[in-house]
Amino acid sequence: MLPTHFGVTPDGALRILDQTLLPGEERYLTLTTVDEVAEAISVLRVRGAPLIGVSAAYGVTLALREGPADPARLLAACDQLEATRPTAVNLPWAMGRMRAAVHAAAQQGRDVAQAVRAEAEAIWAEDRGMCEAIGAAGAVLLPPGATVMTICNAGALATGGMGTALAPVYVAHARHQGVSVVACETRPLLQGSRLTAWELTRGGVPVTVITDGMAASRLRRGGVTCVIVGADRIALNGDTANKIGTYAVALAAHAHGVPFYVAAPRSTFDPATPDGPAIPIEERRAEEVRKIGGTQVDAPAAAVWNPAFDVTPHQLITGYITDAGLLRAGELSRLGM
Amino acid sequence: MLPTHFGVTPDGALRILDQTLLPGEERYLTLTTVDEVAEAISVLRVRGAPLIGVSAAYGVTLALREGPADPARLLAACDQLEATRPTAVNLPWAMGRMRAAVHAAAQQGRDVAQAVRAEAEAIWAEDRGMCEAIGAAGAVLLPPGATVMTICNAGALATGGMGTALAPVYVAHARHQGVSVVACETRPLLQGSRLTAWELTRGGVPVTVITDGMAASRLRRGGVTCVIVGADRIALNGDTANKIGTYAVALAAHAHGVPFYVAAPRSTFDPATPDGPAIPIEERRAEEVRKIGGTQVDAPAAAVWNPAFDVTPHQLITGYITDAGLLRAGELSRLGM
Repeated sequence: MLPTHFGVTPDGALRILDQTLLPGEERYLTLTTVDEVAEAISVLRVRGAPLIGVSAAYGVTLALREGPADPARLLAACDQLEATRPTAVNLPWAMGRMRAAVHAAAQQGRDVAQAVRAEAEAIWAEDRGMCEAIGAAGAVLLPPGATVMTICNAGALATGGMGTALAPVYVAHARHQGVSVVACETRPLLQGSRLTAWELTRGGVPVTVITDGMAASRLRRGGVTCVIVGADRIALNGDTANKIGTYAVALAAHAHGVPFYVAAPRSTFDPATPDGPAIPIEERRAEEVRKIGGTQVDAPAAAVWNPAFDVTPHQLITGYITDAGLLRAGELSRLGM
Repeated sequence: MLPTHFGVTPDGALRILDQTLLPGEERYLTLTTVDEVAEAISVLRVRGAPLIGVSAAYGVTLALREGPADPARLLAACDQLEATRPTAVNLPWAMGRMRAAVHAAAQQGRDVAQAVRAEAEAIWAEDRGMCEAIGAAGAVLLPPGATVMTICNAGALATGGMGTALAPVYVAHARHQGVSVVACETRPLLQGSRLTAWELTRGGVPVTVITDGMAASRLRRGGVTCVIVGADRIALNGDTANKIGTYAVALAAHAHGVPFYVAAPRSTFDPATPDGPAIPIEERRAEEVRKIGGTQVDAPAAAVWNPAFDVTPHQLITGYITDAGLLRAGELSRLGM
């Protein structure tokens, strides 16, 4: 049984794991209104670009529980949900699909409620399928007893399926290949130690947490089969934006001859961005670095620089594990780029 | 006035700043027994290789407050203090000097108590002089407006004087050269954000804190004049053990053509260790990674790897800023190696 932490109840409500409480508390919430889904996305109870898209799509279906299948109400739900987070590309993409489903059904005189439910189901099913395809494409890279290093969380908690970077790990684990993971904790927000370590231990995969600064030493020590990370955007030339700290891991992997893979669906490839320097990098609040669990950790008079992402140049990337198979940087044109 | 945070009371007790409480609380402790000094070193109330050596030397003198100036008791104190931390060479070096002082005074029929106190004073005075010499040798590398990146804390809080890696910064600052610092926070124990940022802001030097995983991006961005780090042990070939995360910064500095300097006194050079792989690396408790400020941050079932140091190969080190001047790896023989 491959992991997922997203579900729908028999009567159509959303069942989500409240990720803000991990790893201390494992609380599933049943969401029955559009407002509840919007709140869950905006305060990061659900996070990860693919999972946000799937959750918002099902969020639109909850409007059907609150009133008639009126196109205006459903489109208003799309607007409300799309406004919850500003950056993730999957959210406007999923809401665009839901709006199109509403318009098409209304214009063609079909059952709007049925069309909306079917589109949400399709978005979720495609997301699971994307994860499975990435898992299959990546699992062949993992010999028995493999150890995979990763950073941040691109696992089941970030998608409607079993994840992107962690999908090959889950597939190898299901085949009883003795796979294990080294998870970089991923400061400042600790997605590695809080989320990746939680979902892997929960899935029965042995995981060792290290601080980000230990990755280079761990790679030199030997025994790491490969690094697999997710991606927030992949430029035309293969340069990849991912969680801050990824670039340092890529430099260390290169120095020690450890293969470095980016796992991502086709939707993460952006042919409109020529290369890494063209990718805008979000800078976030200083408090994310200053505080951990509410505790101030630095000297208050110090300044802070807090970029959320960095860019790994394609020269450091061995391959891209996609839902269209394993590709090299020079082969990205196969994705329509 | 150049900074220092270590002192001795008129009646010979140690006055230390409890670094485990920084930056939240600035509490000075008066230590009056060997046990208290051993505890302070082992739980990192005092830390930094030179300061550990100075503190342990004065720790031996505290045995004189607890009983007669018996050589066996003083040598036992040396053993106890030497056993507190395994990696830094300054500790066995300082204890070796204290033992030699005990033996020499006993054999020559001199006052053992006086010899022990004089040797501790000499070790501290030499440490202050070492910091000043390193500051002078390193300051010439910093043009007006220089930005220095560092990791961990090799400043006034790590020595009996104004520090090693930060000594050139303090000298440049005293000359009004507009120097600033980028401090890697240094997980797991956050010596960068807690200690380096604290002592620099306290000293009036502008400092920006970043997480360790941001160092590579910061170096790529440009404007960093050089990296200066401390050292816990430097092998015969120049390979250098320093706080975990240093090696990753060195790889990134190399990738972006930023000079990478190790600042350390001659006592940190260890001709008995041929190269980096021969340096023993202390592994510390998992809880240091699992918890921050008492908050559990990772999944309890996950394993943790927590090496306290890593080794930067000499090929990545531009030069060694020592109390005998600026040296290249091939010139370390000038230090008697």
